[in-house]
Amino acid sequence: MQKIIKLNTGKKNGLYDITSLVVGFVKTSGVQTGLASVYARGSTAAIMIQENWDESVQNDVVTLLARLIPAGVWEHDHQDNNGDAHLKAGIVGASETIPVVDGKLGLSTWQNIFFCEFDGPRAGREVVVTVIEDK
Amino acid sequence: MQKIIKLNTGKKNGLYDITSLVVGFVKTSGVQTGLASVYARGSTAAIMIQENWDESVQNDVVTLLARLIPAGVWEHDHQDNNGDAHLKAGIVGASETIPVVDGKLGLSTWQNIFFCEFDGPRAGREVVVTVIEDK
Amino acid sequence: MQKIIKLNTGKKNGLYDITSLVVGFVKTSGVQTGLASVYARGSTAAIMIQENWDESVQNDVVTLLARLIPAGVWEHDHQDNNGDAHLKAGIVGASETIPVVDGKLGLSTWQNIFFCEFDGPRAGREVVVTVIEDK
Repeated sequence: MQKIIKLNTGKKNGLYDITSLVVGFVKTSGVQTGLASVYARGSTAAIMIQENWDESVQNDVVTLLARLIPAGVWEHDHQDNNGDAHLKAGIVGASETIPVVDGKLGLSTWQNIFFCEFDGPRAGREVVVTVIEDK
Repeated sequence: MQKIIKLNTGKKNGLYDITSLVVGFVKTSGVQTGLASVYARGSTAAIMIQENWDESVQNDVVTLLARLIPAGVWEHDHQDNNGDAHLKAGIVGASETIPVVDGKLGLSTWQNIFFCEFDGPRAGREVVVTVIEDK
Repeated sequence: MQKIIKLNTGKKNGLYDITSLVVGFVKTSGVQTGLASVYARGSTAAIMIQENWDESVQNDVVTLLARLIPAGVWEHDHQDNNGDAHLKAGIVGASETIPVVDGKLGLSTWQNIFFCEFDGPRAGREVVVTVIEDK
């Protein structure tokens, strides 16, 4: 089964928790054992598994990436002025594949699924969730 | 088929080779063509495909991540004092998906599968291996 | 269905666009809904989803990784003198999993699939593409 999650982002750089949407879709699918693939459509966005106790780790992710990949110094900036956003997306990666175990998404207690926006705000960002059953 | 590998880690930061466990499970599954998903449960751990001729590359991974993501300077440190561990896990990523080719895990000669510990030592770390057949 | 793409690389560090090969194979497979796994065989290579309007982002990826992971300062260099290549491959990652939506690869407009070479030139690099149908 497949579902496209749409979301609007309000920040230039920010992490958006989509865990409950993916968990709900896995439940709806009825799959007991298998895989849930989560894919960010957009070359300035990514998917990251991360803690969500509070916003601290999410803020730290944005801070870290800004330090490692500063804005305004890339060849691509002459074109779109968002070279840093593409590089952040490439390093974090567009996809994560999470097991479905006993009918539930196999995240650990502190793992949540985040859509990472690196060139917002954007309306209509898309994440494709695909659940495959192991038959 | 699905299997949960449990392992204990002895270092604060270290890579642990789990290749033989995954290779063995793929063989047991009998799958000829498909995918093997390897997923680290834990938001301070990750999965990396890497060489294992000796320990040099593993040591270099730990050194590199310590340089790029120093400890003790993150907002999350006020909470758990392990902000660097979460960031390392997020950058490396929780999952890798490896093809099963002709009944065998499709690693190249020098590719091994490592569980990356960034906040050890820990007992009972879990890796979920899911093998899906292409029917 | 599974296919092994072979390619030769001409640069020490470079990104090679394999999108059309993967798109074509998904079409050939006839799969309507499912997953396409793209996997780089080789511990000094990786797969990255990235824009391909022109070569600017690809050049920026090479520049960024050279800054973050300089050559010649790693323990592994005493062995093979390619420690940086292994580290780049580990950080970018060997696999990406892309949804198949309505019979087509679910990339967004600006997303392309790149094989990342970090220790070229090499002949006969291999990428395994596996397409799994959601039945």
